[in-house]
Amino acid sequence: MSRSDERGPKRTENPSHRWFDEVFPETVRCGLWGRCVHEEQTPYQKIQIIENEIFGRTLLLDGLYMSSEADDFYYHEMLVHPALVTAPRIRRVLVIGGGDGGAIREVLRYPEVDEVVMVEIDARVVEACRRYMPAVGGPAWEDPRLRLIFADAVEWVRQKDPEPFDVIFLDGSDPVGPAKGLFGAAFYRDCARLLAPDGVLTAQSEAPFFMRAVFSEIVRTLRQVFGRAHPYLGGVPLYGTVWSWTYASRRVDPMAIDDARMAHAERFTRCYDREVHRAAFVLPAELRRELA
Amino acid sequence: MSRSDERGPKRTENPSHRWFDEVFPETVRCGLWGRCVHEEQTPYQKIQIIENEIFGRTLLLDGLYMSSEADDFYYHEMLVHPALVTAPRIRRVLVIGGGDGGAIREVLRYPEVDEVVMVEIDARVVEACRRYMPAVGGPAWEDPRLRLIFADAVEWVRQKDPEPFDVIFLDGSDPVGPAKGLFGAAFYRDCARLLAPDGVLTAQSEAPFFMRAVFSEIVRTLRQVFGRAHPYLGGVPLYGTVWSWTYASRRVDPMAIDDARMAHAERFTRCYDREVHRAAFVLPAELRRELA
Repeated sequence: MSRSDERGPKRTENPSHRWFDEVFPETVRCGLWGRCVHEEQTPYQKIQIIENEIFGRTLLLDGLYMSSEADDFYYHEMLVHPALVTAPRIRRVLVIGGGDGGAIREVLRYPEVDEVVMVEIDARVVEACRRYMPAVGGPAWEDPRLRLIFADAVEWVRQKDPEPFDVIFLDGSDPVGPAKGLFGAAFYRDCARLLAPDGVLTAQSEAPFFMRAVFSEIVRTLRQVFGRAHPYLGGVPLYGTVWSWTYASRRVDPMAIDDARMAHAERFTRCYDREVHRAAFVLPAELRRELA
Repeated sequence: MSRSDERGPKRTENPSHRWFDEVFPETVRCGLWGRCVHEEQTPYQKIQIIENEIFGRTLLLDGLYMSSEADDFYYHEMLVHPALVTAPRIRRVLVIGGGDGGAIREVLRYPEVDEVVMVEIDARVVEACRRYMPAVGGPAWEDPRLRLIFADAVEWVRQKDPEPFDVIFLDGSDPVGPAKGLFGAAFYRDCARLLAPDGVLTAQSEAPFFMRAVFSEIVRTLRQVFGRAHPYLGGVPLYGTVWSWTYASRRVDPMAIDDARMAHAERFTRCYDREVHRAAFVLPAELRRELA
């Protein structure tokens, strides 16, 4: 986040600038003032990259805010590190979605990672992010450990005799549009088949306040498939609300932190560290009761 | 929070409804769709109470969102309970601001509280909230332990030979407009003079992501005045971002929880409990480093 605290005028009164609002649910909206630097309709969705004073270059898919140059670390550190500091092995990692490059950037910071397979449905998202928001993926795009596959993950995860992954991240957009298939029991079961028995899967699991039923459904379904699933929370300024991710594993305890890996992560993380890890798994009381 | 998860149409297309947007900072906005049920200009500020599908009746002062029927507990539980479960005594409590009644409602849930003095500058806010959002204050407005004073707190706290308070809550609106004087070292020193030596003061301390400099300044100034000040965080859906409060005390450790009082609080709180208390004081790493 940039540090814009003054309430003075920041809006450029310029015909190229306007409000870009995300409406969620129907009677609540959050918007950024900015200009559009890129817009295209792909076979899957509408891509927009806008430029805002506070968030810098910011990606929207079908009008929904995804990530920004200034604050993507709040989202991607929380998505990636809890699994990577607790999984017994992190040699082979799968990222589903993640077209902006933030997830693979965080994963590839670990030298123990030998290979990251990223399955993204829309090559245009990757191209637009690499061109207009290159800092989000950073060196990850050129890392020889990255294997980038453009495919529908719903199909791709049905492969026969897979070589198992140690960690899987589900980094799709919201469960509408092209990411819808990434949120059901059938898909989670296919992912479970690709995961080592002591592997960890972490999914972004939506806004627990505003999308309560969707959030609960994701957690419950992951619990059904994996036996255990632990939602955790963090603030993501761009999303205008507290966000959630859910850590699912048949065997691994999310509090079983590998000290060496945590020490490594704490050298570069900006929001995440050991204390944040522990605190993030504490849910507001009524949310915890509801999921119990 | 109500549980509106469907993305279907909820907006009543009706000329009495419109978007009520709060702009903070200048290029970010959050808004609710609704109709205005009350609007007036007082000598201090513009009061608006609107009705929204998700948040119910919602109070704005000078266009800034303050509290809503549906989610005020996220804010007021986090403001009130950390101090009340840790202060050695909680017999005399002072609330500065808090015109919607949510703070006194939570304070008066403790039978140990003998007296709550509430100093609110604008009687019209109390009148409007009692009329249009009566559930926020609830039984607190009629509680014989409440002493309601309509006065400018900046003047009021300068009184000579005060009887000390065990706990003080600073529940003013944002540091613009009539609440501006509630955010400086001079005011905090006057409050410190009103506070028992082992008392606790908790202040709402703004949005740490969007109002970083304001947040840091509040924490630093409270630290100067009290010797120790501990910011803590929580999600407040209405505010569209993570919110902060700061716990200040010359002697009391915010982790010194009184078990009986916590057990009492956990019987009625909806978001707050012992685990949330501990987790709330963990800040994102870079925020903690910045304040160190």
